Amino acid sequence: MDRLTIVKVGGKVVEDPEMLSRLLDNFTSITGYKLLVHGGGPSATRLADRLGIETRMVEGRRITDLQTLEIATMVYAGLINKSIVAGLQARNSNALGLTGADLDLIRARKRPVEEIDYGYVGDVENVNTRELRLLLEENVIPVVAPLTHDGNGMLLNTNADTIASRLAIEFSHYFKVLLFYCFEKRGVLEDPLDETSVMAELSELQFVEYQESGIISSGMVPKLYNGFKAIHNGVSEVLITNPDNFFRGKGTRLVKS
Amino acid sequence: MDRLTIVKVGGKVVEDPEMLSRLLDNFTSITGYKLLVHGGGPSATRLADRLGIETRMVEGRRITDLQTLEIATMVYAGLINKSIVAGLQARNSNALGLTGADLDLIRARKRPVEEIDYGYVGDVENVNTRELRLLLEENVIPVVAPLTHDGNGMLLNTNADTIASRLAIEFSHYFKVLLFYCFEKRGVLEDPLDETSVMAELSELQFVEYQESGIISSGMVPKLYNGFKAIHNGVSEVLITNPDNFFRGKGTRLVKS
Repeated sequence: MDRLTIVKVGGKVVEDPEMLSRLLDNFTSITGYKLLVHGGGPSATRLADRLGIETRMVEGRRITDLQTLEIATMVYAGLINKSIVAGLQARNSNALGLTGADLDLIRARKRPVEEIDYGYVGDVENVNTRELRLLLEENVIPVVAPLTHDGNGMLLNTNADTIASRLAIEFSHYFKVLLFYCFEKRGVLEDPLDETSVMAELSELQFVEYQESGIISSGMVPKLYNGFKAIHNGVSEVLITNPDNFFRGKGTRLVKS
Repeated sequence: MDRLTIVKVGGKVVEDPEMLSRLLDNFTSITGYKLLVHGGGPSATRLADRLGIETRMVEGRRITDLQTLEIATMVYAGLINKSIVAGLQARNSNALGLTGADLDLIRARKRPVEEIDYGYVGDVENVNTRELRLLLEENVIPVVAPLTHDGNGMLLNTNADTIASRLAIEFSHYFKVLLFYCFEKRGVLEDPLDETSVMAELSELQFVEYQESGIISSGMVPKLYNGFKAIHNGVSEVLITNPDNFFRGKGTRLVKS
């Protein structure tokens, strides 16, 4: 089986031109098939501020009304996605930017309203990798923005960590998939205040323990939750790492037990 | 040779939800391979206004400074492109939204500064249809936003009429290409005040005459100029038409002489 490396980068990384440049240099050095998934929260918030649109968060999650969805579409699918694509093309990597609507890549269902109405947020229902597999064979590098669609013409906001995990799981039917979650720190830290206390490995049991004891912060939870889901569903390797270390395979490796 | 229909729609059409819906219904009814190119001026201007960024026009052409380029990227590649893609997916058409940077589709050179500095505007240098031809065979429908790239990481603003014409010319090596320019009127009007005075045909000689006599307005000139260029370079048919008539082949047909 050929290897496919899926790298997920957070919004903060892609918005810092210097960090993005380093990330793309390192990403380009990875051999074999590869795919990039990006987030993009902070600049959407900034654009909303400039337009006088209030950003509403509940428990760390953005509430996506129609105006917020438009902003997400502009910033994620437009500004961020295309600046990554142009940056990869400049490095002779034949990138193709996509949302979940393009090529019907990711269909989602608008999250049902229970205690909280998240608005235009999509829970992934179906992933179609058919056309992307053809393109990977042509050395195309897909760059995926965190938006999905409902099949009825509506775009939906979807967490980038989830998208990376779901793509990794689906592609694992065809490739040996490595999934790298890149964020600001070198990995999961034993001591949140000590940047060097990177855990070499993290099991699901430890994850639950550390979460209960507060060692693992709320921002890490979606990455780890999605990472373990990937590990349990055919993905060969999941690493929590940063833009300077991922391509060397350094970081915190998730292990089944 | 298989037939490929390239439809170019202007910004005003794609911004009116009802007109866009009709356009997509009609576009979907076209048989054979097809590709959509869209413009998007007015909503970029509106977003610039909301952000307090001045839109500078010289002789009807937008001057693209860095802020304006960012807005164009958000509106053209994000908002407009993805709403068309989602709309086509809802009609069971497997759309893929692209800029010229994606798949290295259109490389351009930043326009040299002569009398006017147009800023980040690109003149098309190279069109690469390789991956899109593979995708067309898989019944994928490319949807192209009016942005190109310079191969060094910079996106550039490029006229959508020009993009449609250059794509049509390049694809004519592989397909029998029909190029439809859709705008608000039914075609080129003999009398600008009489909507029914649609010319059935227009030759290049007449174009020059009508331009001199002022019958053809400045807004029509890029469409016609690019349309004649296409006709002279392998494109089988060029029609100036509107969102309600293009799929019936009704409008003003450009003829060589």
